[in-house]
Formats: sequence, structure tokens, C-alpha cells
Amino acid sequence: MVLSKSVYLHDIPLDVAQSRFRQALEDSGLTGICGVEEIPLDEHALGRVLAEPVWARISSPHYHSSAMDGYALRAEETIGAMPTHPITLRVDDQTVYIDTGDPLPDWANAVIPIEQVEALDQNGAVSRDARHPYLIRIRTTLTPWMHIRPMGEDIVATQLVLPAGRELRPVDLGAVAASGHSRLRVARKPIVAILPTGTELVPIGQEVHRGEIVEYNSLVLAAQVLDWGGEPRRYLIVPDDFELICQQVQKAAEECDLVLLNAGSSAGSEDYSAKVVDELGELLVHGVAVRPGHPVILGMLHSSNKKKVPIIGVPGYPVSAALTGEIFIEPLLASWLGRQRHVNVEVSALLTRKLVSPAGDDDFIRVVAGRVGDRLLAAPLPRGAGTITSLVRADGIVVLGRGVQGVEAGSPVKVRLYCSPEELERTIFAIGSHDMTLDLLAQHLSERGRRFVSANVGSQGGLVALRREEAHLAGSHLLDPQTGEYNIPYLREYLPDIPVKLVAWVGREQGLLVRKGNPKNIHSLTDLTRPEVSFVNRQRGSGTRVLLDYQLGKLGILPEDIKGYESEEYTHLAVAAAVASGRADCGLGVTAAAQALDLDFIPIYNERYDLVIPCQYLSGPLLQPLFDLMMDNHFRQSVAAMPGYDVSRMGEIIVDCKF
Amino acid sequence: MVLSKSVYLHDIPLDVAQSRFRQALEDSGLTGICGVEEIPLDEHALGRVLAEPVWARISSPHYHSSAMDGYALRAEETIGAMPTHPITLRVDDQTVYIDTGDPLPDWANAVIPIEQVEALDQNGAVSRDARHPYLIRIRTTLTPWMHIRPMGEDIVATQLVLPAGRELRPVDLGAVAASGHSRLRVARKPIVAILPTGTELVPIGQEVHRGEIVEYNSLVLAAQVLDWGGEPRRYLIVPDDFELICQQVQKAAEECDLVLLNAGSSAGSEDYSAKVVDELGELLVHGVAVRPGHPVILGMLHSSNKKKVPIIGVPGYPVSAALTGEIFIEPLLASWLGRQRHVNVEVSALLTRKLVSPAGDDDFIRVVAGRVGDRLLAAPLPRGAGTITSLVRADGIVVLGRGVQGVEAGSPVKVRLYCSPEELERTIFAIGSHDMTLDLLAQHLSERGRRFVSANVGSQGGLVALRREEAHLAGSHLLDPQTGEYNIPYLREYLPDIPVKLVAWVGREQGLLVRKGNPKNIHSLTDLTRPEVSFVNRQRGSGTRVLLDYQLGKLGILPEDIKGYESEEYTHLAVAAAVASGRADCGLGVTAAAQALDLDFIPIYNERYDLVIPCQYLSGPLLQPLFDLMMDNHFRQSVAAMPGYDVSRMGEIIVDCKF
Repeated sequence: MVLSKSVYLHDIPLDVAQSRFRQALEDSGLTGICGVEEIPLDEHALGRVLAEPVWARISSPHYHSSAMDGYALRAEETIGAMPTHPITLRVDDQTVYIDTGDPLPDWANAVIPIEQVEALDQNGAVSRDARHPYLIRIRTTLTPWMHIRPMGEDIVATQLVLPAGRELRPVDLGAVAASGHSRLRVARKPIVAILPTGTELVPIGQEVHRGEIVEYNSLVLAAQVLDWGGEPRRYLIVPDDFELICQQVQKAAEECDLVLLNAGSSAGSEDYSAKVVDELGELLVHGVAVRPGHPVILGMLHSSNKKKVPIIGVPGYPVSAALTGEIFIEPLLASWLGRQRHVNVEVSALLTRKLVSPAGDDDFIRVVAGRVGDRLLAAPLPRGAGTITSLVRADGIVVLGRGVQGVEAGSPVKVRLYCSPEELERTIFAIGSHDMTLDLLAQHLSERGRRFVSANVGSQGGLVALRREEAHLAGSHLLDPQTGEYNIPYLREYLPDIPVKLVAWVGREQGLLVRKGNPKNIHSLTDLTRPEVSFVNRQRGSGTRVLLDYQLGKLGILPEDIKGYESEEYTHLAVAAAVASGRADCGLGVTAAAQALDLDFIPIYNERYDLVIPCQYLSGPLLQPLFDLMMDNHFRQSVAAMPGYDVSRMGEIIVDCKF
Repeated sequence: MVLSKSVYLHDIPLDVAQSRFRQALEDSGLTGICGVEEIPLDEHALGRVLAEPVWARISSPHYHSSAMDGYALRAEETIGAMPTHPITLRVDDQTVYIDTGDPLPDWANAVIPIEQVEALDQNGAVSRDARHPYLIRIRTTLTPWMHIRPMGEDIVATQLVLPAGRELRPVDLGAVAASGHSRLRVARKPIVAILPTGTELVPIGQEVHRGEIVEYNSLVLAAQVLDWGGEPRRYLIVPDDFELICQQVQKAAEECDLVLLNAGSSAGSEDYSAKVVDELGELLVHGVAVRPGHPVILGMLHSSNKKKVPIIGVPGYPVSAALTGEIFIEPLLASWLGRQRHVNVEVSALLTRKLVSPAGDDDFIRVVAGRVGDRLLAAPLPRGAGTITSLVRADGIVVLGRGVQGVEAGSPVKVRLYCSPEELERTIFAIGSHDMTLDLLAQHLSERGRRFVSANVGSQGGLVALRREEAHLAGSHLLDPQTGEYNIPYLREYLPDIPVKLVAWVGREQGLLVRKGNPKNIHSLTDLTRPEVSFVNRQRGSGTRVLLDYQLGKLGILPEDIKGYESEEYTHLAVAAAVASGRADCGLGVTAAAQALDLDFIPIYNERYDLVIPCQYLSGPLLQPLFDLMMDNHFRQSVAAMPGYDVSRMGEIIVDCKF
């Protein structure tokens, strides 16, 4: 139990941090290409960066060559040849056969393609021995250089073939070969040391216990370094021990061009990174005003051979770590390789909801994106720095620069894409209630060339999104307490002017999720009022919440009588996780969620979960694979195999664009 | 000398060829993923394709953990705490220190960040031993679960983490690790045999003689296969011998998943590919109506173990070969890897000149592209199948589908980009007269973050392009025969309404290029009229041509008196190549071109070569590096080091936006 707080951490603006780092690199002579390496010209040169321009050593073709299979001849001797007025030439003497690519004889200056030639025998009759004619008859007048590839047509010796800094593509390799080279001088790959530190960390593949964390930042950083053209070296995990960390950093500085020291970059009691940098070199920056990611450290180490080696203290939260890679590591590698920065394609999209951002920070917002109707939409994802899945799901990043305090819903924003723009065009955007069968659907749609992107905002939230034309479909299981009917009354209320198709998806059991063995002996909703029972709820607007409130009303139970009623989760699995971890004793959810986390399940109700699809999206190929799947026996069986699901009505049309 | 013509070659439409090939693959059970391989979860998994979905084995976090460095406590015990009304808690008993990521004690349900805590000693005074306080004082009321990352916040056990078919990115690897996996099941890399055939071929690195060709298609194909996720195997060159080729193909079919047989796919006398396929299996397609590339062969081989192995006969011309890769090989690898196709980003651009296309073919037109003013322009490159440099220079491809006979200049076309869209924004588009110093300029601009794309159409062509707003600048060396002045009179004529800046670039010598030792004893333009002297000319509109015509006029020499006057080349180097190869005895050009190809040079004239830049492009950062270079001593020295160039006036402003 330690209270010491780092004295260093103090956020400075991103551009200030970058220019301070750049200056220190310049002062140490560490800008520009980090070394040259000569490699053979083979397919493994792909993606390497030319350290020097390639100038042509030879021309290509390096002699005049035939562009066709045909006969080489003197153009002058064909003057006057016409369809009605053929001219004959003696083979060997006036003309010779020549294959594509063969050198033109010195005396010839044109080639006639074989298709335009009649082969004749000694008597002037059509030759029976087509392989050895005596004469050829032609009916076209040729001009000099017809059907010839003159020397240097492709490449002239001494010309610039490729500039330095080029990342070599397959055709570039061909051009280098064609211009007479067999070796390449490319930028050496910068060697990047990646040092994970933390007593709580365990390597991938080892069983984790309470309080332990799988160390995977070094994996993500290594893959980034590889992707950007560097050579990563992952070091073993070092516990939170100042001396040990110092030793390892010193070793890395001797062996590598850049040191990444992961975690320990904040100001906690065991955050030694800043002190280590201070001890072994110069601490330039501790804290950058970017979100997520702010406790970034930038410094310069002094290695024993007087060489300076830059060090980056990478924050421990995985999203911060990955973004630190993009912001600080990629540009440094680009500079050392002498290549242009890898820049994501940027598209303009409309924000689906308002964003607020601290004015002092550059704020990197992860978004999912897709085309709905004729608009490209960007829906912000949760902003926590701890959720690597938010980066996995992200289609791109919206940067709210320093000074920007927020952006209104519906505003255009620039999205730096992680996916290709083409993928946005085959994205099915689903906003609404969560169901575990949607994961399975996503997998099957992916095999059929569709991306299924879903945002879980509950059934009513989904209908609101459809009204705003922000989704192709919404999953909904809204019970109308008056009629006992599912969904239809809500369509009238939320989407009075939007014709939709309502299609049955699954029937499913809802019930209480309790820990294995049901230790608190919970059997009905009435048990929720017992003082020793804590509950975890779903968010307002979700079908499960409507169901709960409906049932509680029937039983005369007041929300304030239930401990935990105000604690809200957004998915069935999150509710199950809350129960499994002991955060709550029970929650309302589907069977599959209970089974997933090995919980007991007390059935309360059967309900219908439908898909609501505005009719404007029915035409066109986008949703077709979804309809195909509903009728696909293999898919239906996979869904039915999940506990508590009934697929007998899947695909049944309940409302058909009548509204 | 052989006349036998293949009976096979017969072009069929691309879509027919594709579907015939697909059907044959399906019939042989060769569609879908070609195999599964289990690999360790490390950075080398980058880019591999998941063969199966990844479902979470564990949750992340897998316990409730602190989101901050701070004190764990019971939220209930903070009720009522306010800035003016602090509450104190006993350390160890009511609260404990906890680092970010540490597990929450069972009894706690919230964390207060260390920054919001005052550490006190036993007497309630501010603790001198900040590392071991006795009490903490807090001035905020916490709600349950504040500053806690609940179990499963990132990943809930059993959820879908990644779908099958995903090409793994760095963050994906992190998510797989976080969800409890240490190995991955990915698609096996398809093994692709690449067999170069041709008696005239020599391997890269070997000196080439007349009639020999450097074999580099196998290099380009291998790099493509690597880039698309396959494993290439390059075989040694096989001469044009039916038996030997059969043996090698048979061997490759035993060892690999796909055989690429390069060249010999046409209908020439030594084109055995179709016969080989027919001999060893089934010939499906010989000839596809695509340009360039049509003599493509598609077939299925029977290997000894009854396995069928597809074979693609790849045409020999390098552009055809590379495009065959994109059209036929990439989709096949995508299918075998179970991934989506790699699709180039598509942008819409305006065509700078009319295109004519055969109606029966899918025509793949290489273009350079860049933004000029507010328009994205696409300028078609030469269409020959033999020029690998046209693919190297190409920024993208415009496909004119079957049935399209042409597109007018100024029409919008879709460009499939080979570069990133961002590169188009930092492209300097130069159209006009060619000069060898522009190669050097391109290299230096590339180091300064600009792409210099130049199209050589002669000085007058450049001015026309400026009038059409199709270029940022034009190189021009147009002599006015009336005034003896350079360029200015032409600006008045061609660009009366467009204000331009005219900047001196280089002074240069123009003269006659003759073979080493001047065997034909040429010393002045008068010698061009001698009957045994042949000349190679520059195209109409080029400054060199204007100069020639001016000088000929002064001397009273008629064009028809000069043999070769009608034969036109587009660059100085092309003229030099024509002389070096013996195609002509002399041509008019610059010293550097003579030196490049080891020719003798007879000076005729000194001339000024200027850059013409419309004033509308002067503002903004695009052209700034160009102006910087003109003043850069290092750059000026490199230019001056080229023979025949004078840089003393470089950067001098001759006309300053006055027109």
C-alpha cells in the first residue's frame, strides 16, 4: 500500500509532444533513413523500401524485337500491296519467320503478323507444308516499324525507374529486373524492442488467476511494428521492479533502434517507466493530451556505445497502447525507412449521436460505419481505453482535435478508415435489441460477403434508429401490456410513416439467471424484493426491461423494493456476467446467456423476437443473404441448437409493408 | 521457321471464362477453403485468415478490477461526503489501496481515484508518510461500481470475438489473446507453382545478349501470390520443348495447389501451353476477350493421386501477365483462403482524352491520376502490353467493359486505384515537354512528400493541357521564329485568359546525336539531306521540333529532303535510343541524352527551358517543395552536374502572373 505519486505526469498537447520528440531525434542524428541493406531481387523484396533511386542499367527491350508472331521484311517491298493486289516475297531472301520477342534481322524494318500471310509452295499454290513455305503472299502495305517493339520502348538505359522511398510492389520488382538489376538497396528494417512490465502479467497461453492479466500488448505492438516494416523483438515480462526494468531497458537499448516500454507509464505506485527513462537518459515528455492514451512517455536513452536510442513509454490500457502505436511509432518507422506514412483512407460520414470531448485533448473516437440508404453513417463505440474489442469492431477513427468540445448528432465528420471503403457498401447496420443468435448470424453473413454491424441499444432504441434512417433493421421483442401483442403496436407508435416488414426471427425463453445451485433460492420475481437478494437490470427501452416492468406491475411490486433495479446492463451476456461474478444475485435474460456462463435458469416467460426492416431497404442485393439464411436449414439448425430458442416461425412475415 | 498455328486460341468473354473455370473447380471440389492449419498466436499470425470463428474462452477482465489507481471502498460508506463535508475512512479496515487492474476486494464495490484522496496520519493530520496513511479523507459521494471495470466489460466468455474469414490485424491478435486463446486455426497457404518457359529467357542477374530476354514474370507473379496470401514456388526456366514442359508441369501438379505456366499461351510456333494442358488434363479456355492479356489459358490437370489441380496459362507480355494475376489468380486465392477479395479503392475521375476500345473486349486501361484544382483527373497511359513501366507508373486502372466502344474526353470514369487516394492529393501533374532533369526533380520531390507525375506531349501540348486545366505546370522551350524570344509569345497565343507564372528552369544545349565516332560524318543540319543519312524526329508541337523547323527554314531545307523526318519520338531519350540502336543515324536532342547512351553530340543551339505555372495553383502547399528545390543549392548542383545544363537562371521569374 503505497501513496507515492509520480511527479512527472503532466499532459502536454500532442503537437508539442511530437515536435519535442522530433527535435530530440534530430539533435541525436536519428532522423532519416536508419541504414541501407543490399538484398537480392526476389519476391521477398516485396514491401521493402528503396533506399536509393533505381536508374536503368539497360534498355528494355535492349534490341528491336518483333511484337507479333509473323514475318520480318523490308516495308519498302510491300508498297502497293492491297487486298485485290497481293505481293509475294521469297522466304529466307526477302522475309523470314520471327516469333514474338525475337530480334529483328538487321536488314528488316517491319513485321507482318502471321494471320495476314498466305503461305505458298514453289509453284505459287497454297503450301501444304505450312511450316516451310517457299513464298508468302501479303495483301497489305506496311510502314516502317510496324509490329516492332523498338529498343527502349519500355525502359531507356539511364532513365529513372523508381524513386527512393518506394515501397516495392510486385510490378515494381519486374521493372527493376527489366532495367538490368539483380540486387536492391533498401532501407534496413529498424529493430524495435518491446518490453512488457508488470507483476500482474502472465504470458499468452498460461492459465490466468484472479488478479492476473494476460499480457498481449506486446503482441499487438509487435504485429504493428511488423506491419509498418520494422523488426519487432519481444522481451520476456519483467515484474514491477525498478532495478530489473532498468537492466532490461539498458540491454534493449544496446540491441535495438527503439525501445517500447509497456505500461508503468502512469503515475501509480508501481509505475516506474518515467523514473527508468530519467535514470538511463532524458525524459522528454510524460503525458500527452490524447484520449485514450494520455500517459505516454517519450525519451532518449544513452547506450554504452554513446549511441542515443529513443524510448516510448506505452500506456497499459490496450486501446491506448494500440493508438500510441499509430500516433508515435508508425511515423518514426516511416521516417527511418524513408517511406511515406501509411495513411488510412478518409471518408466523410454523418455522426449518429452527439459527442462531447474535453477541449484540451485530441480525442480519438472509435466508430462503426456503413451506408444506410444514401448516407454514410458513423456510430460512436464505447470510449473506454480497456476494451480491445472496441478497436476490433471499429471501422475507423474520428479525431476531435484540441479545441473541439463536441459535435452534434447528424454532423459530418471525417472517418479514418480501418476497413476498405468498399466494405462500407456491403454492411448491414443493425441497431436494436441484442440477441445471442445475432453473433451466429454475423458469422454466417460474413461467409456470404456481408458485414453485420450491430449496436445494442434495446428494442425501442432500435425503432428510434429506424425512424432516423440510421439502420437497415432492428431486432425487437416489445410486449404491449394492453394487448399482449408483440411489436406491432410499437411500430404504429414509433414508425407511423415508415412502411416496414416485420419478420419473425426466433421464439425464446426469458427467465431469471442465478448462480449455479441457486444459493439464494430464487424462484420467481417476488423473490427480488427479499432484502438479501440483489438484482441487475437491463436498460430502459429494452424488451427485457418492458417485460420485467409489465410483470412487476401485474404482481404489484415497486422498483424501489428491488435492490439493484437501477443498475443497468446493455446485453444478456453482460447481465449473465454480472451474476456469474457475484456482482448481483440474479438478472432477467435468455437461456443461452445462462448456459454460456454456466448459470442456472428459472424460466419466466416465452417471447417472440422479430426483425423490423424498413421496406425501402428490401430491394437490392444487400439484405438478400439475410433472407436466404432464414430459409437455410443448416443455419436454422445451428440456431435451434442454442438452448432456449425456437426457430419454427423464423422467416414468417408478420407485417408486410402495409403501414 | 515454322507455320503451325494453334487450333485452340479463340477468345471468349471474361465472364464466360470465369464461370467455366469456377464450374470446373466446383466439379472437382476445389472451391472453398483449401485446408486448415493451427499456428501459435504470435505476431507472425498477422495477415493470416481465420479458418473458424473465434469464440471467447474467458471473459476480459475475468474479475472485477480497478479502473484507476486509488482506494477500494464500500460506496455506502461515502454517502454524504461533499467538498465542505469530508468523510474519513480507516485504511485496511474500511478501505485499501489498489492499482489499476488489481482485483476488487470482495467486500468493496467502488474505487476512489488517488487524486481525490487526502492521506492522514493517526492524529488526523496530513500524513508525512504518504506511502502508509492511517486514514483517508474523501470529499465525494461514490455510487456503486464507480471506477471499476466489471468482469466481462471487454469480452464475455462464449461471445463471438472474430468471424471466420477475418484477415488478422494487430488488434485482432490482441482480442484473441484477451479471450483466452494461445493458438489459432487459420487457412493453409495455397502453394502456387510458377513455371517460366521460353528458350529466349535468361534468369535475373545473368548478362543478356541480343535475342535474350530477362525472365521476370515469375518474379512479379511470385510477389503477387505472396501479397495475396499464397506461398509461391518459382521453378527454373524450361526451354520451349513440349516434353520438358510436360514433365515440369506434371511435377508441379504433384507438389502444388495451382500451376501457373508462363508464356507459350499464344498461338505461335513455340507456344506449347495449350497442348500441354490438353495432354495432361482438360483445356477449359484458351483465349479471353480482355485487353491486354487475351491469350489466357484455363484448365484442370490430373495429378497421379487422382487429385485435380487447376492450371493457368499466363500470357508472356508483362502487363498481360500481371493483369492475369489480378483477374484470375487473386480471386482463386481469396476463395481458397476463405477471405474477401482484395478490392482496390475506387474513385471517380475525369478522363483527359478520348478512349476507343474494341466492343468485344473488357479493356483494362492504365491511367495516372491526380487532383488539379477541384477535379480529379485520369490520364491514360500507353496501352502496349509490353511495357511493365506503364503498370509501375499507373495510379490505377479504368475498365471499359465489353460493349463499351469508347469514352469521350472529359467523361467521368471509375478508377481502381493502385495508390492510396491520399497520394492523389499530393500529386504534381506536369504535362508538356520532356527534359531529363525532370527525373531528378521527381526523385527530389518524392523525398519532400510530393508525387511528380509527368506526361510527355511536347511544349505546345503542355500549354493546351494548361488551358484545359489538366495540369499544374508545363515544361516549355518554344522558340518564336519571329522574335527569337522563348515561350512568352506562345503564352499569349495559347493562354490569353489564363494568368501564369513563367519561371526559368534550365538552359540547355540542343544538338545532333550521332553514333560514337560519328561514322556518317554528320556536322550540321545540312548533312541531313544526304541520301545515306537517316534521321529520327521529335513529334509535332515539341520545342525541339519547332527549333528544327525554324533552323531548316533558315537553311532552306525541305522536310521531304530528310529521310526519316516523318518518324516521330516523344522524348529525348527515345531519340537517343533510336540512334544508339542504329534505327536512325541522327536525331536532334540534348547533351544528356547523348551521354546517357554513349553517343556523340554535335552542338547546334542553346535554348531556355522554362516552367509555365498557372497562378491559380501558386497558393497552397502543393507546389511549395518545387519552389524550395529551385533555391536549394544541393539540388541545383545535382542538375548542373548533368552534361549540357546551365542552372544559373533557375528560379528566375520571367512572367509573374501579369497576363
